Amino acid sequence: MLKVGVIGVGYWGPNIVRNLIANPHTTVPICADLKPERLNYIRSLYPFIQTTRDFREVIHHPDVDAVAICTPVFTHYEIALETLKAGKHVLIEKPMASTSAQAEELINLAEQKGLTLLVDHTFLFTGAVQKIKELVSSGEIGDLYYFDSVRVNLGLFQHDINVLWDLAPHDISIMNYVIDQLPEAVVATGSDHLDNGLEDVAYLTVYYPEKLIAHIHVNWLSPVKIRQTLISGTRKMIVWDDNSPSEKVKVYDKGIEVIQTTDQIYNTLIQYRTGDMYCPKIPQTEALAVEMQHFVDCIQGKATPISGGELGLLVVRILEASEKSIKNRGKEVLL
Amino acid sequence: MLKVGVIGVGYWGPNIVRNLIANPHTTVPICADLKPERLNYIRSLYPFIQTTRDFREVIHHPDVDAVAICTPVFTHYEIALETLKAGKHVLIEKPMASTSAQAEELINLAEQKGLTLLVDHTFLFTGAVQKIKELVSSGEIGDLYYFDSVRVNLGLFQHDINVLWDLAPHDISIMNYVIDQLPEAVVATGSDHLDNGLEDVAYLTVYYPEKLIAHIHVNWLSPVKIRQTLISGTRKMIVWDDNSPSEKVKVYDKGIEVIQTTDQIYNTLIQYRTGDMYCPKIPQTEALAVEMQHFVDCIQGKATPISGGELGLLVVRILEASEKSIKNRGKEVLL
Amino acid sequence: MLKVGVIGVGYWGPNIVRNLIANPHTTVPICADLKPERLNYIRSLYPFIQTTRDFREVIHHPDVDAVAICTPVFTHYEIALETLKAGKHVLIEKPMASTSAQAEELINLAEQKGLTLLVDHTFLFTGAVQKIKELVSSGEIGDLYYFDSVRVNLGLFQHDINVLWDLAPHDISIMNYVIDQLPEAVVATGSDHLDNGLEDVAYLTVYYPEKLIAHIHVNWLSPVKIRQTLISGTRKMIVWDDNSPSEKVKVYDKGIEVIQTTDQIYNTLIQYRTGDMYCPKIPQTEALAVEMQHFVDCIQGKATPISGGELGLLVVRILEASEKSIKNRGKEVLL
Amino acid sequence: MLKVGVIGVGYWGPNIVRNLIANPHTTVPICADLKPERLNYIRSLYPFIQTTRDFREVIHHPDVDAVAICTPVFTHYEIALETLKAGKHVLIEKPMASTSAQAEELINLAEQKGLTLLVDHTFLFTGAVQKIKELVSSGEIGDLYYFDSVRVNLGLFQHDINVLWDLAPHDISIMNYVIDQLPEAVVATGSDHLDNGLEDVAYLTVYYPEKLIAHIHVNWLSPVKIRQTLISGTRKMIVWDDNSPSEKVKVYDKGIEVIQTTDQIYNTLIQYRTGDMYCPKIPQTEALAVEMQHFVDCIQGKATPISGGELGLLVVRILEASEKSIKNRGKEVLL
Repeated sequence: MLKVGVIGVGYWGPNIVRNLIANPHTTVPICADLKPERLNYIRSLYPFIQTTRDFREVIHHPDVDAVAICTPVFTHYEIALETLKAGKHVLIEKPMASTSAQAEELINLAEQKGLTLLVDHTFLFTGAVQKIKELVSSGEIGDLYYFDSVRVNLGLFQHDINVLWDLAPHDISIMNYVIDQLPEAVVATGSDHLDNGLEDVAYLTVYYPEKLIAHIHVNWLSPVKIRQTLISGTRKMIVWDDNSPSEKVKVYDKGIEVIQTTDQIYNTLIQYRTGDMYCPKIPQTEALAVEMQHFVDCIQGKATPISGGELGLLVVRILEASEKSIKNRGKEVLL
Repeated sequence: MLKVGVIGVGYWGPNIVRNLIANPHTTVPICADLKPERLNYIRSLYPFIQTTRDFREVIHHPDVDAVAICTPVFTHYEIALETLKAGKHVLIEKPMASTSAQAEELINLAEQKGLTLLVDHTFLFTGAVQKIKELVSSGEIGDLYYFDSVRVNLGLFQHDINVLWDLAPHDISIMNYVIDQLPEAVVATGSDHLDNGLEDVAYLTVYYPEKLIAHIHVNWLSPVKIRQTLISGTRKMIVWDDNSPSEKVKVYDKGIEVIQTTDQIYNTLIQYRTGDMYCPKIPQTEALAVEMQHFVDCIQGKATPISGGELGLLVVRILEASEKSIKNRGKEVLL
Repeated sequence: MLKVGVIGVGYWGPNIVRNLIANPHTTVPICADLKPERLNYIRSLYPFIQTTRDFREVIHHPDVDAVAICTPVFTHYEIALETLKAGKHVLIEKPMASTSAQAEELINLAEQKGLTLLVDHTFLFTGAVQKIKELVSSGEIGDLYYFDSVRVNLGLFQHDINVLWDLAPHDISIMNYVIDQLPEAVVATGSDHLDNGLEDVAYLTVYYPEKLIAHIHVNWLSPVKIRQTLISGTRKMIVWDDNSPSEKVKVYDKGIEVIQTTDQIYNTLIQYRTGDMYCPKIPQTEALAVEMQHFVDCIQGKATPISGGELGLLVVRILEASEKSIKNRGKEVLL
Repeated sequence: MLKVGVIGVGYWGPNIVRNLIANPHTTVPICADLKPERLNYIRSLYPFIQTTRDFREVIHHPDVDAVAICTPVFTHYEIALETLKAGKHVLIEKPMASTSAQAEELINLAEQKGLTLLVDHTFLFTGAVQKIKELVSSGEIGDLYYFDSVRVNLGLFQHDINVLWDLAPHDISIMNYVIDQLPEAVVATGSDHLDNGLEDVAYLTVYYPEKLIAHIHVNWLSPVKIRQTLISGTRKMIVWDDNSPSEKVKVYDKGIEVIQTTDQIYNTLIQYRTGDMYCPKIPQTEALAVEMQHFVDCIQGKATPISGGELGLLVVRILEASEKSIKNRGKEVLL
């Protein structure tokens, strides 16, 4: 039984607690939060959980094997560092740190100590992303042409980070999980309509090797909620509509074929191929439930983190680079 | 009765001919095309139309008051120049020329000669775009935050121009028609997956004054056809889905309000507003029919071209700039 | 503070309990259920609630002013009767009883005793149905032509009732709430594919006065979930798609006009009218929360039940009649 | 080369002419219509076609091998009779006749004379219906549970027939083509809101052997256009949305399994199965083009009519029976 202390039980933390309680191999001995009412709330649901306002009490609690850190981003580094120093495994909210330097330090320390460091990029554990990863890894999609993601909605404006830091970690982590190549450079554009330096609309292009390109549109000012991703390859193409209740992932047997001709005018001829579309069955298991079990498996050495420090670091690096690019109107920033 | 000669009756030209014939104030005395089979086709439909393989015959035909130029882009300049020199009005396919220098020369000549120069940005004459223009001009949408357009599909790859030159003229002309401000700079990214220097996927950001930003995604490699535009303003927001047969334009009474507070932590508070949505009735008249009548009205001095040389030039300028930017991985290009 | 005992905390009961707890004017002193594990579940959420396996203990509890009956249909009559005899108000699950005779007896007893009898036709308290009722009552839709509802899905097959008794109470209650006229007759057809006398696919036509017709399609064997209602009137038309997360109710300014002509061939000429569509903002309040407050208001004499005994009885009568009709292949059954 | 005379070139006839001209194995020597302007129209498109106001001239034209009858329903019988008597093949608009007695006489005469009699149930020749037929015939769907079709729109009201005779021939012909069993009885309900005896909203249930049931909803008073058919079987389920431009037919690997248990309470247990959905590629060939070739093949003895007299007669029988049922409020009418 893995005993996981949880620091931060505001918006997201209670979901982590609920899933840790529900998993037969994990439990939660203690939770911390600065706000007493959040601790009261947790105790009302789980009277057996100890609570404290001091996060250090969680880390150094003798019954705690691992710590889940669900606090604001700017506190991640400090708390994770102390947890790792105390020899305990870490599950940390995304983005994993405020800077890539911090993220690297955490990765190194975890490695030295032989501890598991899992970043909570929850989307990677959804049935949809697992299916997409499988489709791409198996070669069914062929070599990828592009990855294009739109994640827009009205609200919720954040007070300390722009829309890229708020929403794009989802897309960036999914993109890197699926693509499995190292990106080379980013170009970002956007606008802060409230004149506070925090973009509410942003566009991010990520260049990968060999013509593969990724693009992310995140937006707090859209009248409609769109969560749509297009992934095209040489063999098939995917449309993932996360808003669709029952047909989230569609796989199109579509593509082009380039035929070299001896024709004098055009030296290439494009042929279009259109076949069936199918919509694979997607398991409905809650992503966090899958993730908690994965955390256990990683700690027990049965699995390697699919969203470990390296992926978490890459997400932070891309966010840092896109921040630099967006402030310089699309200046290319190498990674 | 305005007599319009038509040069080029391949793919698009016959639509122009059909609408000129249908309009009670216009007729078509003569058509030109290099391919005899296209001329045969026109004669089979309209036995009274004279045909020729020599475009100059159309321009200098004594019965011709105006010329519609529906030939490939690289020929626009030469044909339009000769037409204007001959003292005849011009309707010209989009984009109006291959370079902004050519476009400027045509504009100047038309002005000197007092001739009408209309660029066939057909979309501007659709009921949907007319309605959107009206919504924005009337102030119903408020000050614009952004314009975001997606125009993607599988095919048709062009052999001599990239996807921006092929598809983006639609979005760029609509955007500039609706926005009514001069853009300042562009940033473009993309990829040519066939390694021929012709991007098949492209993303274009256009910066306007005062935080207004526009973005266009054009793509020949999408498994699904998307034609969707989001336009957000301080008062309302528009979603235009051109694929929808009956609910193309939706107007959302949604927005944010920024409240200055004395709160020490955050000095701004965002409130979200959500009201009714409505879907205005859109006239079903064919855009080209509206445009042909507009051409007549302009020539008769009853109207000013809504897609005249200046708009046509702006489209070419943005395409040129985006070409430069896309080849330099998003380098900002000032307009 | 209204004290409501809850009998039956299986599938639906806990939602009633949660909303009674959340309402500042109501509380729950005691719950009953035959299954100890359901009682344990309630106590784990609300340790202050007393529990019992004997429903009579709830009814006769000195602190109980009213009883919510969330048990299987065949028990409704007996429990409600004893509750009313004990002089306590009743909130009862739909359908309110197994036979119209039972329903009538409950209505009479509640009336004699001056007690509130509310049937839990939850849908009537949704924002969508409230909006539709308002649109029809205000005359905006005009005189109704028809009401057409489709409620289909895969599963859940019931073991003791057919799909009409299972799903149609929703549509029948909404229909009668909106229409506000007494139906005259029903015709029902359907099929029991498992050969057990319980139809899994059923179609119900209800005749109202003056050409108004209603139709309901309920189905346990559909591959897709459809929850769509069309309501047409002489002035406007409504489409209610309950699956749509954000655009549930659409109001179309569409219709026909009949023009009497002196034309010899046809003595009527139909003209079609098409105007804007709008999608009114629908309040998001949970229907049960609205209903619990309505229950309080009714008991305090501030409101009259919108789903009282009379509506509940009408639903049962239509179900009884449709049962008779469906077994006789569409034989008309007068109400 | 099959020479087909066409009688009636109003709304639908010109489509028949166009497809007969386009087919390399057929041509049109002569057309008839009562209105001179329709004949002028045909001659303007096809100057080589002879025209006449006298339909008998077409039938008895020496160059005519077959006649396509595209006139109003009440004239079908007389014209088809004379055509068959003249020893010529017949292609006849749907519904094939005004009464089943007339239809039977035509069938018998065609049989005696060894002539082809094809009814123009065009939908049967669409890629979608062909695919559905194939899915059902191959056993992929299993034994059918039900066929449910909705065909609603605003307009066009007919002056001499109700909405069943106007729209339902599509659904009835498709249903019988796909089902391949003889229906036993019908129940129809509806309403004529204009008080002229012509129902504008109608619901039709058709009983087939062994619990298979079909239902059709046709409606001239719907604010939205719906063309949706559900077909469920023991193995898979189909949704056909004819409005969808690219995903018309979806096949769901969904179903139920009935497990006989020894459980004392319920003797059957239902299990639900949900797998992938797929959307087969549908050929885009125009239905009428396929049908014209089929007409040729039938005449040449290479094929048997898929919408021959028997199917045409069955459609008329069901319409007659539904007429009787609808006037008697759902009275069952045996076929």
